[in-house]
Amino acid sequence: MRAVDVIVKKRGGGALTRDEIAFFVEGATAGTVPDYQTSALLMAVLLRGMTPEETAALTDAMVRSGVRLDLSDVPGVKVDKHSTGGVGDKTSLVLAPVAAACGVPVPMMSGRGLGHTGGTLDKLEAIPGFRVNLSLDEMRRVLATVGCVMIGQTKEIAPADKRLYALRDVTGTVESIPLISASIMSKKIAEGINALVLDVKTGSGAFMKTEADSRRLAESLVAIGNASGVRTEAVITAMDTPLGLAVGNALEVVECIDVLKGGGPADLVELCVELTARMLLLGRAASDRADAERRVREAIRSGAALAKFRQMVEVQGGDPTVVDDYGRLPAVRDRHPIAADRGGYLARLDAELVGRASVVLGAGRDKVEDAVDPAVGILLQAKPGDRVRAGQPILELHYRDRSRLESAVALASRAITIGDAPPARQPLVVGEVR
Amino acid sequence: MRAVDVIVKKRGGGALTRDEIAFFVEGATAGTVPDYQTSALLMAVLLRGMTPEETAALTDAMVRSGVRLDLSDVPGVKVDKHSTGGVGDKTSLVLAPVAAACGVPVPMMSGRGLGHTGGTLDKLEAIPGFRVNLSLDEMRRVLATVGCVMIGQTKEIAPADKRLYALRDVTGTVESIPLISASIMSKKIAEGINALVLDVKTGSGAFMKTEADSRRLAESLVAIGNASGVRTEAVITAMDTPLGLAVGNALEVVECIDVLKGGGPADLVELCVELTARMLLLGRAASDRADAERRVREAIRSGAALAKFRQMVEVQGGDPTVVDDYGRLPAVRDRHPIAADRGGYLARLDAELVGRASVVLGAGRDKVEDAVDPAVGILLQAKPGDRVRAGQPILELHYRDRSRLESAVALASRAITIGDAPPARQPLVVGEVR
Repeated sequence: MRAVDVIVKKRGGGALTRDEIAFFVEGATAGTVPDYQTSALLMAVLLRGMTPEETAALTDAMVRSGVRLDLSDVPGVKVDKHSTGGVGDKTSLVLAPVAAACGVPVPMMSGRGLGHTGGTLDKLEAIPGFRVNLSLDEMRRVLATVGCVMIGQTKEIAPADKRLYALRDVTGTVESIPLISASIMSKKIAEGINALVLDVKTGSGAFMKTEADSRRLAESLVAIGNASGVRTEAVITAMDTPLGLAVGNALEVVECIDVLKGGGPADLVELCVELTARMLLLGRAASDRADAERRVREAIRSGAALAKFRQMVEVQGGDPTVVDDYGRLPAVRDRHPIAADRGGYLARLDAELVGRASVVLGAGRDKVEDAVDPAVGILLQAKPGDRVRAGQPILELHYRDRSRLESAVALASRAITIGDAPPARQPLVVGEVR
Repeated sequence: MRAVDVIVKKRGGGALTRDEIAFFVEGATAGTVPDYQTSALLMAVLLRGMTPEETAALTDAMVRSGVRLDLSDVPGVKVDKHSTGGVGDKTSLVLAPVAAACGVPVPMMSGRGLGHTGGTLDKLEAIPGFRVNLSLDEMRRVLATVGCVMIGQTKEIAPADKRLYALRDVTGTVESIPLISASIMSKKIAEGINALVLDVKTGSGAFMKTEADSRRLAESLVAIGNASGVRTEAVITAMDTPLGLAVGNALEVVECIDVLKGGGPADLVELCVELTARMLLLGRAASDRADAERRVREAIRSGAALAKFRQMVEVQGGDPTVVDDYGRLPAVRDRHPIAADRGGYLARLDAELVGRASVVLGAGRDKVEDAVDPAVGILLQAKPGDRVRAGQPILELHYRDRSRLESAVALASRAITIGDAPPARQPLVVGEVR
């Protein structure tokens, strides 16, 4: 098989065979197919598309580039959740311990933040001592002991994805539903889970800006999961404004602990309940949706979920006393408020701009090799729909480096739109695919 | 400027600016833009196309990657011819000396054969001692002395094309009219010519299989040439069957000398007259088309063109006595006839299959690094339209290596189609673009 013939076939809109796809994925991973041929194929895939069968074959080849974990020795239906990424999107830290407290084992592998969206690993690492780089053996032990574990992708998991993603990032071939689908699902399938809940974000702060694109992505992801023996469903949720009130790693950890203590902002609680209830149903830990929601709320009310969180932090090397004393989390002293320049209703608080402002402050990264500052970030002091007075603070920037403040303020100020009438209320859960 | 942003723009169907195109061409040539980004852009260009302005900017950037010769010290309107490539397509060896004999200086830079099509340099090198790798200074001297010179591209001419072509060849990005146009025209414009006649082939043995595609390519080439100050016109000519009766390097040299002596097959003579007459008109060496044709035929009849050819061969280090003694050209002893398996009319003699059979015999190359055998090839003993008897020889394979014969015979046999009625006569010159 010659790489150029496979490229020409896809270029012409043909459907590639399983063998042709495997040849490319194996070759790209091993380095026997040079990057310039892989990138030409990736561009042809982006512009010509892939059939569901091709996307499934691509996912499968990427799974087989590494190990597919066998967690059958851990009792129960193993369930994970994956989000396509948003601003202030911190549900993982809540729902893993809640689901575990309800008897559903959660072996969660997450990523780091990139661009304006945050990443679960960065948030976890805001907890002093927390180790996300466990070996697969350590992961298994934590899962068996605690019932949930939250780690980074190990090098054994879908190494082809790492290589292909690095190439896509620099060749303008990221925004392809088949390529995105295979990248996400190969890593999830390789985790050894039995079921998966997907949170596909839609809106300005999401990767997919329109509901139609988000639905297409959700359908592609769900089809791959189910075809690979992982029961998969997706909720499509709004990401036009940050989720909750905190954006930034330590700030978001605090907010998650608040939710686990029974508090926290309403939208974040709503989404955590929605996603965890689905995990319980897929994990056969609830009889119906009402039962699932009841169990989720009870795990929080009883303190069982918080106890699971505390235990997981401790077992993964973190300081469990952060749960009781937020002062042990990294923080900065300097705050800069951004106030409403007129009275009215907060019509819009743009997620992408808030996310980009927090990256400028150091909470996220533009390039994978950048370090993040766990302490900095942005607190929302109003949410869209709120009535605001002129001069009332809308955002509070927590900054370390004054030289970065000006451009962060410029971005964050542009995020705020104040109108005369209350904006139409947008539902948080926009749709589902199962 | 970031390469990935330029890729994303083209991926979305946007028109690139001159600066963006120059950034990529310069970066690809210098190695500062990595091949994997260049190939992704090439694929996006192939699938999204380029406007005439973008194609002109691409050509210009490729010209500027090297030197643009200044031949203004050579008197007269410098005219060249370029063919998009065919089987038995040998007109260059005839028309350069004819045009020179008529007072039109011809500074011709040619390429080597690749795939089923032959190349002028390989044919010239069949003449013992002939040097195609002249320096630019030597080229100038030969042009001034003889009036024509035939050499290979020097490294100073459009180095970007060399690099981009090598990448296109292995990334499925050859078949793009903007990329083909820029590749051809950058090299021709850099030669320092004032006018150019293009022979755009169409049909089974051509790069462009349909007349519509050939016309689109011709229009693109002519537009670029005229925009760059090179008066350019194109003829679209049939390449369904080999041109003339000889395919293979030394065999084709013999046929060219036959034409220069006033003989040769009718189709080859017709095309040589057509192209050279156009060169004379562009070179202001004839008052009108009839005058141009008359001058071309007179240059042949008088022996002036043959004398030019002999002089050019001698000045470029070749053995000029080949003109009088074909026995001094490389030849093989072994011949294998392929006969008609039934009586009727020769309906078709497929150019691509004959070309591929000659490559198998060693007359051409599949990969640029392959060597060619100047002596081997195929002689046609009938042309489409001819009445043939069962058992009458149609092709004569001149072979050196018996182990290659079987697959060459298989290909060449498939090239022959015999029908009951004479085929519709196809014109050689299908159209023109000017």
